[in-house]
Amino acid sequence: MHRVKVTSLTRIMPLSVGESQHLRVLRLRPGATLRVFDGQGAEADATLIRLDEGGAMLELGEAVQNNRETPQPITLAVALLKGDKLSDVVRAGTELGVTTFQLLQTRHADVPEIGEQKLVRLRRIAAEASKQSRRAVTPEVLAPVPLTRLTLVGQGFLAHPGSTARLTETLDWQTAVTLVSGPEGGFSDAEVAALTALGFTAITLGPRILRAETAPLALLGAIAASGV
Amino acid sequence: MHRVKVTSLTRIMPLSVGESQHLRVLRLRPGATLRVFDGQGAEADATLIRLDEGGAMLELGEAVQNNRETPQPITLAVALLKGDKLSDVVRAGTELGVTTFQLLQTRHADVPEIGEQKLVRLRRIAAEASKQSRRAVTPEVLAPVPLTRLTLVGQGFLAHPGSTARLTETLDWQTAVTLVSGPEGGFSDAEVAALTALGFTAITLGPRILRAETAPLALLGAIAASGV
Repeated sequence: MHRVKVTSLTRIMPLSVGESQHLRVLRLRPGATLRVFDGQGAEADATLIRLDEGGAMLELGEAVQNNRETPQPITLAVALLKGDKLSDVVRAGTELGVTTFQLLQTRHADVPEIGEQKLVRLRRIAAEASKQSRRAVTPEVLAPVPLTRLTLVGQGFLAHPGSTARLTETLDWQTAVTLVSGPEGGFSDAEVAALTALGFTAITLGPRILRAETAPLALLGAIAASGV
Repeated sequence: MHRVKVTSLTRIMPLSVGESQHLRVLRLRPGATLRVFDGQGAEADATLIRLDEGGAMLELGEAVQNNRETPQPITLAVALLKGDKLSDVVRAGTELGVTTFQLLQTRHADVPEIGEQKLVRLRRIAAEASKQSRRAVTPEVLAPVPLTRLTLVGQGFLAHPGSTARLTETLDWQTAVTLVSGPEGGFSDAEVAALTALGFTAITLGPRILRAETAPLALLGAIAASGV
């Protein structure tokens, strides 16, 4: 069933020009049933009541329970990465259940900052990936903050070579989860010390050296494989 | 320290034209210490004894214990995927410890076959990624076989939506591991039945729909996060 993101679930919902065009490409006709979601967790059936050059209109149907979210929100704090690597992390991270992406400025930065256009693009990727993975929640992508301004809500984990603690043995779903993932050059010793002082636990990802874009997906994969 | 792959660890080791060129770009000089590995698990220190237009020559030093491999070999049997997706899976899968990639022909194939040139390219990516992740083993990339010809060595797992068994609770490092990952359209019911009959266990990756290139990395991430 085709899934459409709407601003909010109201009795009659007009669609954007892009979405309307997409429904025409799919050759849908009035009377077709679709699924709508608002990106905040609400999802429902809907009926296409109009589709023409002027756009598309949907009528709200029955609410649908969507149970694709983790028991507590997951924040992925990820260092700025070069090229398309951040896009890859946001896309796969959304599929794997991240609720908030917090971009991070770090000492060994692959890139020092990120343009507004790129941020908009990352948000579009998060919206698209939440639709594809059938989540009713679209993750936020928050503009970069310096690592020192990161606050720990709930329990925090940091992948760090040489650690022996294991994520899945330590994780507890009673509170929110924050995962921190560094740049290609890794975190500086001072940064690791600062994160540890904030209450983050250093955990292992095995004895191999992972690229900066692989490490966060390994952390999230471990959560996905635990079934939540 | 720069790592170089050689055919075998012998007292005097000539390098390929490409590697020699790379050492010149790095401005190394005779006397420099490097690390050599043969892709089969052997690793050692080595000294650069010649570097000129004619090529490079290394002298073998002390053997080095490399403990970056999982306790038992991991085979990732992965369906043929479109575009660069297989490259991404081979690159990240190598970082995450895969020993053998077995390409698979499946019912719902994204692409029906793979050219010799692309296979060579995947092998080059595996070699490069094993070097980057500091493994002494370069994974094999085996030409596609039909899913029905897959044999199960050790214990086998198949990510399948709706399963409740968890990888990390079921995995036992006494025997080899085979992970099976499907195409974008998923496995057919008959394929799932065939794999189950072969002894593969269907396991969960959570309630979201993952892309074909994300699922195998989630499986491998769960293994990495268990510290092996």
